Amino acid sequence: MYRTHNCGELTISDIGKRVTLCGWVQKNRTLGGMSFIDLRDRYGITQLAFNMDTNEALCSQARTIQREYVIQATGQVIERSSKNSKIPTGAIEIEVEELKVLNKSAVPPFTIEDETDGGDELRMRYRYLDLRRKPLMQNMLLRHQLAMATRNYLSDGGFIEVETPFLIKSTPEGARDFVVPSRMHKGEFYALPQSPQTFKQLLMVAGFDKYFQIARCFRDEDLRADRQPEFSQIDCEMSFVEQEDIFNTFEGLVKQLFKKIKGISLPDFSRMTYNDAMKYYGCDKPDTRFGMPLVEIQHMVHGKGFKVFDEAELVAGICVRGAAHYSRKQLDALTDFVKRPQVGAKGLVYVKFNEDDTFKSSVDKFFDEVSLRSWADAFDAQAGDLMLILAGAKTSTRSALSALRLEMAAQLNLIDKNVFKPLWVTDFPLLEWDEDTQRYYAMHHPFTAPKTQDLQLLYSKPEEVRANAYDLVINGIEIGGGSIRIFNREVQSKMFEVLGFIEEEAHKQFGFLMNAFEYGAPPHGGIALGLDRLCAVFGGTDSIRDYIAFPKNNAGKDTMIDAPASLTQEQLKEIGIDIK
Amino acid sequence: MYRTHNCGELTISDIGKRVTLCGWVQKNRTLGGMSFIDLRDRYGITQLAFNMDTNEALCSQARTIQREYVIQATGQVIERSSKNSKIPTGAIEIEVEELKVLNKSAVPPFTIEDETDGGDELRMRYRYLDLRRKPLMQNMLLRHQLAMATRNYLSDGGFIEVETPFLIKSTPEGARDFVVPSRMHKGEFYALPQSPQTFKQLLMVAGFDKYFQIARCFRDEDLRADRQPEFSQIDCEMSFVEQEDIFNTFEGLVKQLFKKIKGISLPDFSRMTYNDAMKYYGCDKPDTRFGMPLVEIQHMVHGKGFKVFDEAELVAGICVRGAAHYSRKQLDALTDFVKRPQVGAKGLVYVKFNEDDTFKSSVDKFFDEVSLRSWADAFDAQAGDLMLILAGAKTSTRSALSALRLEMAAQLNLIDKNVFKPLWVTDFPLLEWDEDTQRYYAMHHPFTAPKTQDLQLLYSKPEEVRANAYDLVINGIEIGGGSIRIFNREVQSKMFEVLGFIEEEAHKQFGFLMNAFEYGAPPHGGIALGLDRLCAVFGGTDSIRDYIAFPKNNAGKDTMIDAPASLTQEQLKEIGIDIK
Repeated sequence: MYRTHNCGELTISDIGKRVTLCGWVQKNRTLGGMSFIDLRDRYGITQLAFNMDTNEALCSQARTIQREYVIQATGQVIERSSKNSKIPTGAIEIEVEELKVLNKSAVPPFTIEDETDGGDELRMRYRYLDLRRKPLMQNMLLRHQLAMATRNYLSDGGFIEVETPFLIKSTPEGARDFVVPSRMHKGEFYALPQSPQTFKQLLMVAGFDKYFQIARCFRDEDLRADRQPEFSQIDCEMSFVEQEDIFNTFEGLVKQLFKKIKGISLPDFSRMTYNDAMKYYGCDKPDTRFGMPLVEIQHMVHGKGFKVFDEAELVAGICVRGAAHYSRKQLDALTDFVKRPQVGAKGLVYVKFNEDDTFKSSVDKFFDEVSLRSWADAFDAQAGDLMLILAGAKTSTRSALSALRLEMAAQLNLIDKNVFKPLWVTDFPLLEWDEDTQRYYAMHHPFTAPKTQDLQLLYSKPEEVRANAYDLVINGIEIGGGSIRIFNREVQSKMFEVLGFIEEEAHKQFGFLMNAFEYGAPPHGGIALGLDRLCAVFGGTDSIRDYIAFPKNNAGKDTMIDAPASLTQEQLKEIGIDIK
Repeated sequence: MYRTHNCGELTISDIGKRVTLCGWVQKNRTLGGMSFIDLRDRYGITQLAFNMDTNEALCSQARTIQREYVIQATGQVIERSSKNSKIPTGAIEIEVEELKVLNKSAVPPFTIEDETDGGDELRMRYRYLDLRRKPLMQNMLLRHQLAMATRNYLSDGGFIEVETPFLIKSTPEGARDFVVPSRMHKGEFYALPQSPQTFKQLLMVAGFDKYFQIARCFRDEDLRADRQPEFSQIDCEMSFVEQEDIFNTFEGLVKQLFKKIKGISLPDFSRMTYNDAMKYYGCDKPDTRFGMPLVEIQHMVHGKGFKVFDEAELVAGICVRGAAHYSRKQLDALTDFVKRPQVGAKGLVYVKFNEDDTFKSSVDKFFDEVSLRSWADAFDAQAGDLMLILAGAKTSTRSALSALRLEMAAQLNLIDKNVFKPLWVTDFPLLEWDEDTQRYYAMHHPFTAPKTQDLQLLYSKPEEVRANAYDLVINGIEIGGGSIRIFNREVQSKMFEVLGFIEEEAHKQFGFLMNAFEYGAPPHGGIALGLDRLCAVFGGTDSIRDYIAFPKNNAGKDTMIDAPASLTQEQLKEIGIDIK
């Protein structure tokens, strides 16, 4: 062992001990005849002291040591004259007697500090140095704690962890697969799993009863800021359960994680149907840390000659408390905001309910005070509030209002970062219509069970059939989702029919699962929670990349190891493929 | 919830309770006016009872239910008249009042019993049914327990679990990589990791101090019985440690696993150098549950006119206690055994040290009794023992003797399946010479540290340089291995030189790791244990496939899901590759 202690554990009670520490040089400074080195490791920082008067050679040596050198120092723990109360080791220092440079370091391309001067690209390239910084190191520790606590909760609850295979079969349904050419079977390919979905259902058929896995999943999609080609999910499945059992189990999990890791006791989770979420929040993952629900007023606004409203499928808005003072400039900026392509509205109507009980709106030409006051009633607006109204097609208007609602909450600082509001969104539609291909797709996946009471709508009004499918949302972030699965052969056949699969095609794609279902499939259901996103929620930042040790950049590249890269001709020949 | 209890938990203390159980029908039998169904789930078997006299309709329904149907039964827990002491639920049965078939089952292609009538191929194809059988289910539970206990031990010991990437870069060194074509960067490929080796070393550079992961690894090798293209390893790395620290930590882990899972307290592990293992056991993973060491006698046998011995680099054998009674036929069979291509010897010399103190050997023509008696002294043979001797090149003769030693132990039943003998094999050679390519290869990997005291041999006698590399062997099975790594830039350069890498080439392959080492690499080392093999040792069987939920067959195929498989032209086009 190179050391007797780590750099985070020595305190006032260790004074007098002779210790050996190892670590990286965080800082090296000279104060008159003294030199001090801040020695850093994963556990903390301990100050090393050198004195020109008592040991000139050693102190001179210490002065040559640069940042990020790896050193080993032996000496006595002594009390510091000027204590640092910000760190646990701040009351002591080491009076060094022996010093050894274990390894030198070149000057790092950016500073290894909580706030660094390195840009994104540079830090990705030198990820091993970026990970030395405390915020990233803490993120990885958080991830470790979350994973351990999750596994122990599930294992204690009777779940078995089963590792499912990575080299599986490509299924054209859903997102794109990454594929792996087979050398032994030239011209054939494995695919990397987008999720262990079919395997976990097979495990239920096999009688495993309760399964879990923290599983790596792969999707070859064009990347966005919060997407990675490989990501991890807490993947679970249970037999002989209904939706309520899944909720109980995983609400319990999330509560325990918050308790263990953040010391927060969460109350029972709220629930909201998908329809309500869309109606009142404009999206299926509402942030319920603040109110400001969407209010629909199209029934109150027609026939006054305002074409925008008259022609709109939906006229709806939000009431922003105490924002009647917003200036023309601020309102123009909001109009610009909603007109951004990402938000997509055509314009913004505002109605100020002034403190003096008067109204001022951008549609004064069309609507008199009586009208505006009736809107205020609908919005539950008070004097001093600002109503912001959008109009247009239902789906896009809701989506734009959802973005506007979040923007207003941010502008008015309505979101408390220390508050956590988990929410079950339930009763998702079973199917969604795709205009491009003119067919229905399973919203969740083709094995999601429709609600029994909606089954009779499957042929007549497929879009109205609700599924036993649910998402878990925390603070407006979709943490995961799941469903009760179809385990009945006849319902499955109907489902494939509605999805436009012919029996043969269904068999080609899902044959092994359908075969398995012939041999006694139990009722079952499950859920998958995104570990990366869960980490981000716990860590209080937005980017999942900050919680992945070695992420890819937005082009799917790992610039540190330079992957992907070209292969040798010999390698290509061996797997029997040509590059086009 | 579909049930109130599982099928393994009801006992005599539950009598009188009204319960609902779910599960699969293991057996359905009629005894006069009664019918009994053995209902099975992961937790056990509970007997359901039906009576024609008290409920004819229900009993008639029960009689129509076939094996592997999934049913739900509600009724009263009653005491059984004829108890089954072999199962925990054997004292009770359920007097069923309500019965529901949740799902029918086709007749399974093999019986779902501890001993099944299904062949390997069939069971692989219907793996989800094979996994229903108790032995396989137990294996998966064992694996789960091992994984959980491993993670908790390491986490408690300050190790952080870090998930390293799967989409990495191909390195021509070592075994073949599975590769993944990149769609976004056409003509470029990711590779699946053969191990997280470089990433765990980067994590040490990043100051993570103690890392672990149960990591899936991939090797595109031609398969053998105990190989799988994907396998899992308990992967670890530590900073500021010497070999002894690694031994302490992982000896502690293995001891704890044996204690927790098998209730066995293991003594401190034995240690043996690689050279001793080769000399005394003929292989680097000796089974030390029994003795029978190799004895070298070439110095005693030359010059007697027996060409086989005279020309041999090595003459060595084993002493088989109490086997002097072996018949001509048995000895011929042993000769056949050693001449099998897998063993590869040219022939077998035997010397019987008879009970009457006489000798009988297959080389009586060349060696008199005095000679044979002197051999017996060397072998420490007693009257009644049988000496078996091979001759030839050192490496192949040792290897053949190792196989013969194991065969004799099996024939004489010397191996106690309930005994576990872990062993550290140490001081592996740093390099091995490859005749084909006429160069040295790193025996472990190119970052393995040579022993400091052997460094001066690196240029003069590279093959004699020992490494700080070690294997953990239990009962003759290599569970894993590791090494202390080179962290010094100069030693690494020398190493690459001896391995015949030019600097540029080394940089192309290992550049990012070598770069990282410029920024303050700590001394570090690690180990990786094969989880699949560890399971097999704990489970007491040979095949790792029995401990993998969904393994590939010997052709690398998953016959259940039919992978690998061909892709559509559209898929091929999208990733920009042609099949040759």
